Amino acid sequence: MTLPSEPRQRLAVVTCMDARIDVYRMLDLQLGDAHVIRNAGGRVTEDVIRSLALSQAFLGTNEIKVVHHTGCAMRVPSDAELAEGVRRAADALPPFAMLAIADEQEAIRADVAALRESPFLAHRDQVRGLLYDLETGQLTEVTAQ
Amino acid sequence: MTLPSEPRQRLAVVTCMDARIDVYRMLDLQLGDAHVIRNAGGRVTEDVIRSLALSQAFLGTNEIKVVHHTGCAMRVPSDAELAEGVRRAADALPPFAMLAIADEQEAIRADVAALRESPFLAHRDQVRGLLYDLETGQLTEVTAQ
Repeated sequence: MTLPSEPRQRLAVVTCMDARIDVYRMLDLQLGDAHVIRNAGGRVTEDVIRSLALSQAFLGTNEIKVVHHTGCAMRVPSDAELAEGVRRAADALPPFAMLAIADEQEAIRADVAALRESPFLAHRDQVRGLLYDLETGQLTEVTAQ
Repeated sequence: MTLPSEPRQRLAVVTCMDARIDVYRMLDLQLGDAHVIRNAGGRVTEDVIRSLALSQAFLGTNEIKVVHHTGCAMRVPSDAELAEGVRRAADALPPFAMLAIADEQEAIRADVAALRESPFLAHRDQVRGLLYDLETGQLTEVTAQ
């Protein structure tokens, strides 16, 4: 392994944990090009902000792509439905937000906005939101309304 | 794309955002085999618990692998050093934990323990911690002391 730890494209990607997503293929990246942050839904949370703040402060990234995808299991009307599923499975109701995606476009816009407003990110002028079609591989940019 | 959304190996992986990590190659997985959760360090946070709780409750995973790696940028003595770096870059001091990895083995043990103790996970009997050597590709299991 001779790659440097600084991502070659100075890019950080935030996307879903979905088993069907190959981040490198999705964004036409090579190993070493980008930091890859993934969670349920590809939502922007405090942990994502922590990761991006460190990525920018220590490893030179200055661009962020938030990529959600079609057919996401987080695409349900409300957090209550997700929390209730966890309660049924684990017998404990989560006190934290589940971050359901009621509206695909709206969720991407909200996540991009959260990054653009975060004081802990040194670089907020290159933050883009994209929707990835799992069937076709197409990426569609989601812009602010 | 004809893969089902349920991970084929019923596995969820928690690992670092590091640009040099190809999760599928690291763990000899195929696309569709596992949920992949990544953040700075591969640390267990509330967002990781949220993601795993949903993975287990809705998509049938019952095994978790936490994989940290050699040469991680989070390998510094204290959170203060990381927070100060963010402050220098972004001019705002993060109020949240940065989750520095002062000791490689200890961090993995702590993260595995946090998962085993989480009431929101339906399946906690197959949680393993591993250290990935970026140079050699070797995985070493880290067991409780």
